[in-house]
Amino acid sequence: MVIPGGIDVNTYLQKPYQGMTAVDDFYQGTKAALAGGTTMIIDHVFPEPGSSLLTSFEKWHEAADTKSCCDYSLHVDITSWYDGIREELEILVQDKGVNSFQVYMAYKDLYQMSDSQLYEAFTFLKSLGAVILVHAENGDLIAQEQKRILEMGITGPEGHALSRPEELEAEAVFRAITIASRINCPVYITKVMSKSAADIIALARKKGPLVFGEPITASLGTDGTHYWSKNWAKAAAFVTSPPLSPDPTTPDHLNSLLACGDLQVTGSGHCPYSTAQKAIGKDNFTMIPEGVNGIEERMTVVWDKAVATGKMDESQFVAVTSTNAAKIFNLYPRKGRIAVGSDADVVIWDPDKVKTITAKSHKSAIEYNIFEGMECHGAPLVVISQGKIVFEDGNLHVNKGMGRFIPRKPFPEYLYQRIKIRNKVGGLQGVSRGMYDGPVYEIPATPKYATPAPSTKSSPAKNQPPPIRNLHQSNFSLSGAQIDDNNPRRTGHRIVAPPGGRSNITSLG
Amino acid sequence: MVIPGGIDVNTYLQKPYQGMTAVDDFYQGTKAALAGGTTMIIDHVFPEPGSSLLTSFEKWHEAADTKSCCDYSLHVDITSWYDGIREELEILVQDKGVNSFQVYMAYKDLYQMSDSQLYEAFTFLKSLGAVILVHAENGDLIAQEQKRILEMGITGPEGHALSRPEELEAEAVFRAITIASRINCPVYITKVMSKSAADIIALARKKGPLVFGEPITASLGTDGTHYWSKNWAKAAAFVTSPPLSPDPTTPDHLNSLLACGDLQVTGSGHCPYSTAQKAIGKDNFTMIPEGVNGIEERMTVVWDKAVATGKMDESQFVAVTSTNAAKIFNLYPRKGRIAVGSDADVVIWDPDKVKTITAKSHKSAIEYNIFEGMECHGAPLVVISQGKIVFEDGNLHVNKGMGRFIPRKPFPEYLYQRIKIRNKVGGLQGVSRGMYDGPVYEIPATPKYATPAPSTKSSPAKNQPPPIRNLHQSNFSLSGAQIDDNNPRRTGHRIVAPPGGRSNITSLG
Amino acid sequence: MVIPGGIDVNTYLQKPYQGMTAVDDFYQGTKAALAGGTTMIIDHVFPEPGSSLLTSFEKWHEAADTKSCCDYSLHVDITSWYDGIREELEILVQDKGVNSFQVYMAYKDLYQMSDSQLYEAFTFLKSLGAVILVHAENGDLIAQEQKRILEMGITGPEGHALSRPEELEAEAVFRAITIASRINCPVYITKVMSKSAADIIALARKKGPLVFGEPITASLGTDGTHYWSKNWAKAAAFVTSPPLSPDPTTPDHLNSLLACGDLQVTGSGHCPYSTAQKAIGKDNFTMIPEGVNGIEERMTVVWDKAVATGKMDESQFVAVTSTNAAKIFNLYPRKGRIAVGSDADVVIWDPDKVKTITAKSHKSAIEYNIFEGMECHGAPLVVISQGKIVFEDGNLHVNKGMGRFIPRKPFPEYLYQRIKIRNKVGGLQGVSRGMYDGPVYEIPATPKYATPAPSTKSSPAKNQPPPIRNLHQSNFSLSGAQIDDNNPRRTGHRIVAPPGGRSNITSLG
Amino acid sequence: MVIPGGIDVNTYLQKPYQGMTAVDDFYQGTKAALAGGTTMIIDHVFPEPGSSLLTSFEKWHEAADTKSCCDYSLHVDITSWYDGIREELEILVQDKGVNSFQVYMAYKDLYQMSDSQLYEAFTFLKSLGAVILVHAENGDLIAQEQKRILEMGITGPEGHALSRPEELEAEAVFRAITIASRINCPVYITKVMSKSAADIIALARKKGPLVFGEPITASLGTDGTHYWSKNWAKAAAFVTSPPLSPDPTTPDHLNSLLACGDLQVTGSGHCPYSTAQKAIGKDNFTMIPEGVNGIEERMTVVWDKAVATGKMDESQFVAVTSTNAAKIFNLYPRKGRIAVGSDADVVIWDPDKVKTITAKSHKSAIEYNIFEGMECHGAPLVVISQGKIVFEDGNLHVNKGMGRFIPRKPFPEYLYQRIKIRNKVGGLQGVSRGMYDGPVYEIPATPKYATPAPSTKSSPAKNQPPPIRNLHQSNFSLSGAQIDDNNPRRTGHRIVAPPGGRSNITSLG
Repeated sequence: MVIPGGIDVNTYLQKPYQGMTAVDDFYQGTKAALAGGTTMIIDHVFPEPGSSLLTSFEKWHEAADTKSCCDYSLHVDITSWYDGIREELEILVQDKGVNSFQVYMAYKDLYQMSDSQLYEAFTFLKSLGAVILVHAENGDLIAQEQKRILEMGITGPEGHALSRPEELEAEAVFRAITIASRINCPVYITKVMSKSAADIIALARKKGPLVFGEPITASLGTDGTHYWSKNWAKAAAFVTSPPLSPDPTTPDHLNSLLACGDLQVTGSGHCPYSTAQKAIGKDNFTMIPEGVNGIEERMTVVWDKAVATGKMDESQFVAVTSTNAAKIFNLYPRKGRIAVGSDADVVIWDPDKVKTITAKSHKSAIEYNIFEGMECHGAPLVVISQGKIVFEDGNLHVNKGMGRFIPRKPFPEYLYQRIKIRNKVGGLQGVSRGMYDGPVYEIPATPKYATPAPSTKSSPAKNQPPPIRNLHQSNFSLSGAQIDDNNPRRTGHRIVAPPGGRSNITSLG
Repeated sequence: MVIPGGIDVNTYLQKPYQGMTAVDDFYQGTKAALAGGTTMIIDHVFPEPGSSLLTSFEKWHEAADTKSCCDYSLHVDITSWYDGIREELEILVQDKGVNSFQVYMAYKDLYQMSDSQLYEAFTFLKSLGAVILVHAENGDLIAQEQKRILEMGITGPEGHALSRPEELEAEAVFRAITIASRINCPVYITKVMSKSAADIIALARKKGPLVFGEPITASLGTDGTHYWSKNWAKAAAFVTSPPLSPDPTTPDHLNSLLACGDLQVTGSGHCPYSTAQKAIGKDNFTMIPEGVNGIEERMTVVWDKAVATGKMDESQFVAVTSTNAAKIFNLYPRKGRIAVGSDADVVIWDPDKVKTITAKSHKSAIEYNIFEGMECHGAPLVVISQGKIVFEDGNLHVNKGMGRFIPRKPFPEYLYQRIKIRNKVGGLQGVSRGMYDGPVYEIPATPKYATPAPSTKSSPAKNQPPPIRNLHQSNFSLSGAQIDDNNPRRTGHRIVAPPGGRSNITSLG
Repeated sequence: MVIPGGIDVNTYLQKPYQGMTAVDDFYQGTKAALAGGTTMIIDHVFPEPGSSLLTSFEKWHEAADTKSCCDYSLHVDITSWYDGIREELEILVQDKGVNSFQVYMAYKDLYQMSDSQLYEAFTFLKSLGAVILVHAENGDLIAQEQKRILEMGITGPEGHALSRPEELEAEAVFRAITIASRINCPVYITKVMSKSAADIIALARKKGPLVFGEPITASLGTDGTHYWSKNWAKAAAFVTSPPLSPDPTTPDHLNSLLACGDLQVTGSGHCPYSTAQKAIGKDNFTMIPEGVNGIEERMTVVWDKAVATGKMDESQFVAVTSTNAAKIFNLYPRKGRIAVGSDADVVIWDPDKVKTITAKSHKSAIEYNIFEGMECHGAPLVVISQGKIVFEDGNLHVNKGMGRFIPRKPFPEYLYQRIKIRNKVGGLQGVSRGMYDGPVYEIPATPKYATPAPSTKSSPAKNQPPPIRNLHQSNFSLSGAQIDDNNPRRTGHRIVAPPGGRSNITSLG
Repeated sequence: MVIPGGIDVNTYLQKPYQGMTAVDDFYQGTKAALAGGTTMIIDHVFPEPGSSLLTSFEKWHEAADTKSCCDYSLHVDITSWYDGIREELEILVQDKGVNSFQVYMAYKDLYQMSDSQLYEAFTFLKSLGAVILVHAENGDLIAQEQKRILEMGITGPEGHALSRPEELEAEAVFRAITIASRINCPVYITKVMSKSAADIIALARKKGPLVFGEPITASLGTDGTHYWSKNWAKAAAFVTSPPLSPDPTTPDHLNSLLACGDLQVTGSGHCPYSTAQKAIGKDNFTMIPEGVNGIEERMTVVWDKAVATGKMDESQFVAVTSTNAAKIFNLYPRKGRIAVGSDADVVIWDPDKVKTITAKSHKSAIEYNIFEGMECHGAPLVVISQGKIVFEDGNLHVNKGMGRFIPRKPFPEYLYQRIKIRNKVGGLQGVSRGMYDGPVYEIPATPKYATPAPSTKSSPAKNQPPPIRNLHQSNFSLSGAQIDDNNPRRTGHRIVAPPGGRSNITSLG
């Protein structure tokens, strides 16, 4: 069975944390990717506070160029909203081939944006034609819960899960969609980890908002019960944010939603830290570096959980592991399909191969594997990247740096075609009225809040006191039924623009 | 048909705005209440920024004592969270007979609280045994939308509705419930105005959170299409927040949810401003004073829309207009029922009386009525307050100040019985583990964010490099299936506290 | 804590099966009831095919009168719809004090009714003012599945569950509600056993239908995983219909819905057969007599699962174990409350008592207990029936036959008040039109199905051939927009009666 | 814009009714199809009772071959389930190129099948690899409602809508899915006309069942308010089954679900009768011939309502008007795409063309148009069928009979790939137990139902009386907790096969 090479839309192969980085760099990580059937990654540039987006982008670009074994592209994470960021965003979009940016609703006092800031950022990113990625968790509440749980004496990895229950993920997803819906922009939720969050995405899609959801290898293949393992190192290995849900029915549900199209793409969020690195947080779960493995296991896990169970057919498998990503991020038709004119990234997939995932044989440099011992159906036999066989018989044939940077243009059709039409047809409309010429209450010159009573002597308001009905001017009838033929009558779900008579309305779309 | 006198849980008979107040004070307003079958109100004390809760409470108390014609009680609105507020809240609860407080999620830069503040306020109010009232709208987004809409040139009352679409109400309700659910406290949504908001309440109730919803006369009896009226004065009359939804199916839906118990109480939010007062905002909808009438029409509207249509039976009518309110706010069994030992607040209700609502005959001082012309079935024949006939044959027999202040104790059973049990059984539990004694990565002494790469020479981190697997210590097997008998197995909806072995767990509930 | 005596709305203390009866008769069963805090039962009269309703009723009445230790009332099951049944139903309702009848959607070729029959039965029972009880499972599909599963070689009790998956219960509930909704009659689902079925009831209630749901002790306290027990006798003990769901989250969910009012009453379906009796079906699960115990455990199980977990408060506990049943079945206010004038059926309940359910000490004659070993919080200390202490310190003080038959009147207010109003306001309306005076196609005199083509020669149809537009007569404009001011505009959920102009409409409600 | 030619999956160009047929035959109808951008139709063979499937198929085949102007394929409707039908179905599937068959849940005493018959039909059709089409309405209830409504004196077309409310459509959809889910077969709902029905399809898809839904031009473009038109001829023109819903928000909702993939294909159900033919039912709505136009308008309506409103992008437009149909009915890749090797059925689509639908200019022979006056955006400029231009500048260039019959193979991958895998992995499993060797109650030799009490003298049952606990044999412990390690623990949504120990289980797949 021949399929287009996979696209992993979410990796962190160079994410800094406390002066260290995860164990897989672009070389190590992309080798693992290829071994799993993934021929392209989109990595997240993560500017440390104080670094500019542009500088960080260049640093990532350089590192990836010299190390990556497969084609790659770069998202840029907006870790702060600073003066001059708009100009940098424009450069990134217009000159640097970046069309996707991630904002954070969590990490209070670090990267978290307020709703006002999100509104502004979404508005600006939409004007650039970008894909808006959102890390969706309620940071305010997490901070409060972390404090409470530490005070209770819970310091282990289970505290990570307890302080970030899936309700906080679902809440942020709901809010992100609400904001995007106001602005009429697409919104893309990275790392969908729970049933609650996924259900909110699924429900919203029926009502119109252009929202996309990306579960990751971990949420599709395992669950958060492991945070309660008595083995600290094992429990810590699963720490990532949003956390895996302790509800063991989660993977089944997320795979079902992938199958029926309510979720669209799959990433890995690959960012594994060694046990020694994780151990920085051995006395305080909030210090444990966040990240799990999954770059190599992604396609196999989806096949095993969704295709081999009869949830999903092969063509939907290709869609959620490759094609949809290519369309959303404007890589299509160069990537995401097999055709003349497309890149020769091809995988020969063996649906019947049974493989046991284990740290002993995986390509990552990490010493454990969160899917350890999982027996999976479906694996790549041969992987072809840029027309060359790079993986065969379990062996990699790669050179450091052979992967190319793939620039991406803004305004992907798959998202923005509808956005543009909605902009046109969905404009708000005001009502054109005659001037109101009735009495107007006059506010006292200096309303002092502590003594709110208006002076009753000389206030001009006295001339139009409320009890006097001055209805000749207001022409608002005192009696009769409320028949008003200007009232909009709903004929659809949503009255975006209740119409008045065409002739006297200011259309303001 | 004899029923307990109605309780209007939401009035603003003295709300200050820009140095003026609405046209109905405690005297005028309670007369209207009695004429509609309502024998008790709970008014909102609304401290202006800069005023203390306690001072404001005393001011309201005094005004009401001298003017009110029916029994009353007082909510206190928390319009800012200042130093010393905790002490004042304690006094109000313990000495002043106040057990309910309203917080604001809207009115950015005025009364709005952040999620962190809400978490703290909820936590503290729960410790006092209070009923937490929430004005649920997303203030950040409203502010952004107001700006955008004014910039588009829309200045009329329709801008009020366009800038506060029901999605922003629903979003805030969802968030408020999420916060309360973390804290295990009851939460009560005032002024449920839209289907979306009501549906979120209904859905949450099935999953456990103690959430209550209060639609008001306006949302039960009319809709927001009137904001598009070509008559400015009429459109402005409907301005209140959250606004009425332009979806004309809203009243039907809210009445259905009242009937089946998904919504529990009804208020009026009565706070009518004269047309002249409303006209302060004639050129800018954000300046229009907010408030509608409804204190007199409440019971008739519910009867007409819910009982006379066969949605609701008489006993549920009594529940949603009186008994439930008494239970939630700890007035029961003194109020909310007819029995020996209860107050003699009784209404003789005529189910067949047909009445046309009109400003010409209503008891309020306001010159219009948002229900003008509505023909209603069901009205009070005789109203008895404190054992005296106060309304008969359309005539009121009242004296200013005859209403008494009814103090309310904290920890109403109806809410707090379950809360207390949940506190006991729902505690979080950590895992008791042996000490982690494996290697720990050492963070560079001075992690400089702009140059995150750890020096690879002398860094102590080098001594425990990630690639070296130190697994003897960590006893985390490299191979074998992930069988871990400490994993919780979900047998219910929600694993709050996945158990380990009893003996080695620190129970921290 | 003093509460009204419990009412078990669903017992089968004399159900015949293959010439035998279950081990608890009215004496044994009501002793167990009283020991559990239940002071009244409503037993099902189950006429064997060939027996008349009236004869069977008299037989049950006599048996209960001589044996029952607590007050009782009788439902009558309609096991076939025969000539003369209407007259018997009338007698039962008007002279015999029966106001509730159960129909069957399962048991193909035995008691099952078709949709047409259900429509007729519902219509007639509504005219009598009866409560319509429904055993909701799709009998056609069960019969097919039983056949398939037996053919697969599965003969044990797990086959009972596999052949009656909860989808078939949910389907029948959905259909029963659809039928009742057409007729505008109340419908009451006995034995709600699954989440799917309960969710359909909950959803329907929001939209208007008067539907009630009765989970039983078994579905609230245990689950259907036991059908897979390797101990045949144990697995068989759980056989009842609809079966317990193998989904272990079921009890939690049903208790939640009881708590929030989406389900209203609790029964037991008590009808335990001995292991020897169950063994009739040892080689064929379809032969296993159906029935579980639960009459004694009902109130304790609800307390333990719902009140002691903080889902439900005490007043809702009283509602779902007693008051709601009294209201629905028109026993209120004689039963279901503690007040002057009501029967002195009272329980002193000890919320803290911990009791382990076991066959060793239960009062039933059955040798096992499906809740064996379950540790429960909450139990009766003292039970008073008809003013006499009948249970104290674990001892019963009863005499055979001391229970009285409690007759019930039709048209319970709790159900029929709304039904009557809806009958009035919800009538269908036709449109009054002028006569259609256009051409009419003439159907060939003898349409022979096998040769459908109309003869083209002499057929009268030829005179009005379709292509000829005869629009002068039909006055149906060929052009212009479809503006037709007679079209109803929906302003609510449901257009029952799209209005035309009042004057020219035949109101037919 | 170049797109694949449309495929109309639902036409009736030769449906007999009372000895007449609708006004558009294969010639007239396919001309209209081509003018609207549809280059292939799948027509329904409708055998009149008494006719065999095979004979009818041949008749249709012949008629279409001689008249059709575009390629066509044929569904066969199963209007009765007779002896020998299995053999005919096999021939149709294996030799005649038919892979889809429609069954009826409505039309009591005519074509309606019982649930048992549906179970059998689905099972057999699955074994043939067919696509199972369902006309989903509850025929029993319709018959009852028709009778009731006629008795009320309502005889006009509004009676058609009143007697077939959308609840009856939704109920049947729910039931059809329940049946298909038991059998693990795909199910396809033809003519989705209401929000309720569509929502049930959407919900089911998330849980696994392979269900597909086909709204038609009429339900996507107009609504059922027209049944209340005072113009009888106009009202009658809209009569089709299931009827259009009087809820005017229906088209918007159905278009939204098409856009997000919850509904998949679009048909027209084209079968227009002349006003004279409709007038057969002028005094009785049940006699009005059923059918509306839509073959020409289908693509334009979808474009106007879904694409031009920003709900749907162009690629989804192609999917729902052509590609999905090709995949479901196994015409892909010959039809449904533009590529080398596919048929040259191509449309040049003008997104900006504005066209007013009117009977004056449509290609159908019918004298009215149910979309009369509707102004639509989007229309075909040039239509190419089999490589030839057949429509250009509003003119058709066609010859009678130029359309070819396109045979279709069974087991379309798009449906059956998943079905096959599910067959393998989803098998039911029984429990392997030791023989039950306890006592068995002996049933009296001749259980006489009217005298059910077992004789207590000589009955063998006496030897194993229920009260005697014979627990040594049954080894069912009297005490101790119900710990049974054979109980399945749910880790997914649905326990299809609760496992016992592998070794002692009979796997019965």
